[in-house]
Amino acid sequence: MKFNNSPIGIFDSGLGGLTVFKEVRKILPHEDLIYFGDTARVPYGNKSKETIIKYSAEILEFLTGKGVKIVIVACNTSSSLALSDLRKQGSVPVFGVIEPGAKKAVQVSSGGNIAVIGTSATIKSRAYSIAINKEIESLNDDDINKREFKGGFKIMEKACPLFVPLVEEGFLSEEITRSVINYYLSPLITENISCLVLGCTHYPIFKDLIIDATGRNMEIIDSGIETAAVVKNYLKENGMLKAGAEKGGELFFVSDDMEKFKELGEKFLGRPIENVSLAVSVK
Amino acid sequence: MKFNNSPIGIFDSGLGGLTVFKEVRKILPHEDLIYFGDTARVPYGNKSKETIIKYSAEILEFLTGKGVKIVIVACNTSSSLALSDLRKQGSVPVFGVIEPGAKKAVQVSSGGNIAVIGTSATIKSRAYSIAINKEIESLNDDDINKREFKGGFKIMEKACPLFVPLVEEGFLSEEITRSVINYYLSPLITENISCLVLGCTHYPIFKDLIIDATGRNMEIIDSGIETAAVVKNYLKENGMLKAGAEKGGELFFVSDDMEKFKELGEKFLGRPIENVSLAVSVK
Repeated sequence: MKFNNSPIGIFDSGLGGLTVFKEVRKILPHEDLIYFGDTARVPYGNKSKETIIKYSAEILEFLTGKGVKIVIVACNTSSSLALSDLRKQGSVPVFGVIEPGAKKAVQVSSGGNIAVIGTSATIKSRAYSIAINKEIESLNDDDINKREFKGGFKIMEKACPLFVPLVEEGFLSEEITRSVINYYLSPLITENISCLVLGCTHYPIFKDLIIDATGRNMEIIDSGIETAAVVKNYLKENGMLKAGAEKGGELFFVSDDMEKFKELGEKFLGRPIENVSLAVSVK
Repeated sequence: MKFNNSPIGIFDSGLGGLTVFKEVRKILPHEDLIYFGDTARVPYGNKSKETIIKYSAEILEFLTGKGVKIVIVACNTSSSLALSDLRKQGSVPVFGVIEPGAKKAVQVSSGGNIAVIGTSATIKSRAYSIAINKEIESLNDDDINKREFKGGFKIMEKACPLFVPLVEEGFLSEEITRSVINYYLSPLITENISCLVLGCTHYPIFKDLIIDATGRNMEIIDSGIETAAVVKNYLKENGMLKAGAEKGGELFFVSDDMEKFKELGEKFLGRPIENVSLAVSVK
């Protein structure tokens, strides 16, 4: 059996990608993981495509410089706008979070209406709509799911630009956060939605509050969980898993303000974060 | 009489500095103004001192490259953390917004408690407390105002980290904005505050909503208005006003997303913004 002991690179605009990191760690406990959070330039969701590509490319270069075997773009905005450029640039396989989330949405919604929430840039790119429609097209014509969708369904995409600032500022369970969530999501409640895709890696932090706002009839899809599964599968099929059974190592890099990253990151991961360094070359 | 026909440079992390731009334009109608908004890297208020100095220095260089005669740092965060560095770097006089706001606060509060609201970085720097105390110290010992302050007063500084995202996302009068304002400011109401300094150039946009939240007993101080007056005075005293009586020209530069800047900026200035360019060298 083949192995590859190089680390996995994971990056995000800030803290949000730690939700993906957590899922990867859960199902790949032995892998070494290197996380990069672009805390100097967060948020990405209100920036232009050109700027998002530029920043993402710099981080990919940083991570490949660390010898990673694959890179997970744990940022929906970057996955939506920069993934194809990053794949051209990268000497290693690059995984985004959109396709895995879209695939899961198609699986669970069986022809029902699908809602996607994300940053302004992600929603404007329509990356989820495109990926969902592509996923449906790829099904066999006699697939019952495909027939259901062909009967007609809606994809509703909604930008929630205040969610990232709320998370990055640590408003994780404040009353104000509930008000903002209700403000954005209440229009979805009457729309007979079968599943809601959390199209931003910051949003799983609000999962319980989102369920409180939308009720339990919508299945909530966390692209991070789906992406972690896709990555594990890829490493397995390509003989790229790490050999041995010891616990995987972890390194964290940020472009600014390590203390805040540690403090809030701990809330994300549910445990202390160690080995955080400032990446002076990226910002 | 001496004149100087070079333009005035004004910069901010994003759109907020347009509130200062507006006040400068109001009292200096003939001056040519060059505005720079660092829309690619907004917000500054949650970044480290080192990063804020780096970004501010890049912009100062950009503006001096455009031949400006003075630069106004129309960003409280940058004024709090980078001003002394910028003054060392600059070949032109550099004006911040803190001292003018602090001076006005001392004038109007006559020994009463002073509240200051700003970004996390501004508040953490305690720049306003320092400037207010310095201003009081500089008064003559027999100044009635000084004696009142010596009798004891409080400076309450409060970070309002969600205000900038709300402004930058265009939530200018939404119910959600009222909730956030109440959330931050309601603790001030019982504190017998004589004046409230808007220690961030984004906040004057919310002035009416802030008055709704705090009542009319607190005098609201807009550092932008005070700074514009200081600048006018300086130009006049140093023979640096522009000659002639024609309307001043305006150029706007942003580091990202010109369309959003135009759209929201119009709401800030109350008139269409023209001559917006992307500054590719800064971001």
